[in-house]
Amino acid sequence: MEINIQKRVLEANETQADINRNFFKEQNVFVLNMMSSPGSGKTQLLCRTLTTLLPGVRTGVIVGDVCTRNDADRLEVTRAKVIQINTDQFGGDCHLAAPLILDSAKEIGCEDLDLLIVENIGNLVCPAEFDIGEDEKAVVLSVTEGEDKPLKYPLMFRVADIAILNKIDLLPYLDFDAKLAVDNMKQVHPGLPVFEMSAKTGEGLDPWIEWLKIKVFEKTGR
Amino acid sequence: MEINIQKRVLEANETQADINRNFFKEQNVFVLNMMSSPGSGKTQLLCRTLTTLLPGVRTGVIVGDVCTRNDADRLEVTRAKVIQINTDQFGGDCHLAAPLILDSAKEIGCEDLDLLIVENIGNLVCPAEFDIGEDEKAVVLSVTEGEDKPLKYPLMFRVADIAILNKIDLLPYLDFDAKLAVDNMKQVHPGLPVFEMSAKTGEGLDPWIEWLKIKVFEKTGR
Repeated sequence: MEINIQKRVLEANETQADINRNFFKEQNVFVLNMMSSPGSGKTQLLCRTLTTLLPGVRTGVIVGDVCTRNDADRLEVTRAKVIQINTDQFGGDCHLAAPLILDSAKEIGCEDLDLLIVENIGNLVCPAEFDIGEDEKAVVLSVTEGEDKPLKYPLMFRVADIAILNKIDLLPYLDFDAKLAVDNMKQVHPGLPVFEMSAKTGEGLDPWIEWLKIKVFEKTGR
Repeated sequence: MEINIQKRVLEANETQADINRNFFKEQNVFVLNMMSSPGSGKTQLLCRTLTTLLPGVRTGVIVGDVCTRNDADRLEVTRAKVIQINTDQFGGDCHLAAPLILDSAKEIGCEDLDLLIVENIGNLVCPAEFDIGEDEKAVVLSVTEGEDKPLKYPLMFRVADIAILNKIDLLPYLDFDAKLAVDNMKQVHPGLPVFEMSAKTGEGLDPWIEWLKIKVFEKTGR
């Protein structure tokens, strides 16, 4: 029973995601859906990314959390346009669904943006199942989470267009085999581009910034 | 619509959880539901816990993952009875639901156990909503995940009977305020007992082992 219900929820979401996709095309904005476990460092990564991109690449962020607007407060110091979604008023949802994204995208004003980043709710399972009409999906894995996560949560790594291996500044203090982690990502998703970096120190950030600029240019011509 | 569907799923789960609770009472076994984000160190903590408890406290583990039997393989070296559940055959579920638990509990043979630990799927949102008929719930937070997680995922910390703050061996290398993390836990759940430890080094493990022994004795008389 539960599986059939889930199927209907996903189908309804897919219909809305197509509407979102058309909206983002009309607005000529590149949309990236960033997903990860809780505490992988997405917000820190975005703070550094926004500081580097702005004002050249006009970037907005929709931040999803069950509760609090901590992440929006952290991101607003970069002067990016930021909207915080809290899902506790929608039953404490574990993912951002397509209808919420369209409402927030209209509120943030996409006509002034080149790039819209959606920082999804920290969860390595459910958000992978919900298309929000984005252009591409990124998954962030922190080196503290263990090398086997791509094998244990394969859907997330299969749907992702790029992966970020974050917190590499902690490698000296962990029994973590970065090569094995990347191999595991490529086992579930052959050819997946992986950027290894530390959002804290800035090491390895440049290829990710370049990737974003290229993607924005490819879609918007700007 | 989605919220009403979710409500029906949770009600059906609750009915089954009551059946589980009666079964565990008949079998005279203490059942602990362990939950956390992916990569918080639950399996490493259980390896050390089982090694310390066995053979005095007869312990079995039901391990939930979307895919792989990596965790069961790691736990079996302790010689505990271990059953791996993979939810990919049930639509890739993001939590362990009550019906799966009863099937596995019957298979593992609770009549020979004092303690049954359920290592839930790595997810700080959904498993908090699904009662499995357990006696108590534990949440594990690793110090690499950030102090604000109890505020951002309050339901998990509200339903938990105890919390474990793991990986304290990494504190010297992080900007993590352990006192603030514990304060945040107690803000959403006043009086919540918190055990600070490193499953890797064994530091701080004793109070947790004592807590388990007391709980087993209180329920089973053994």
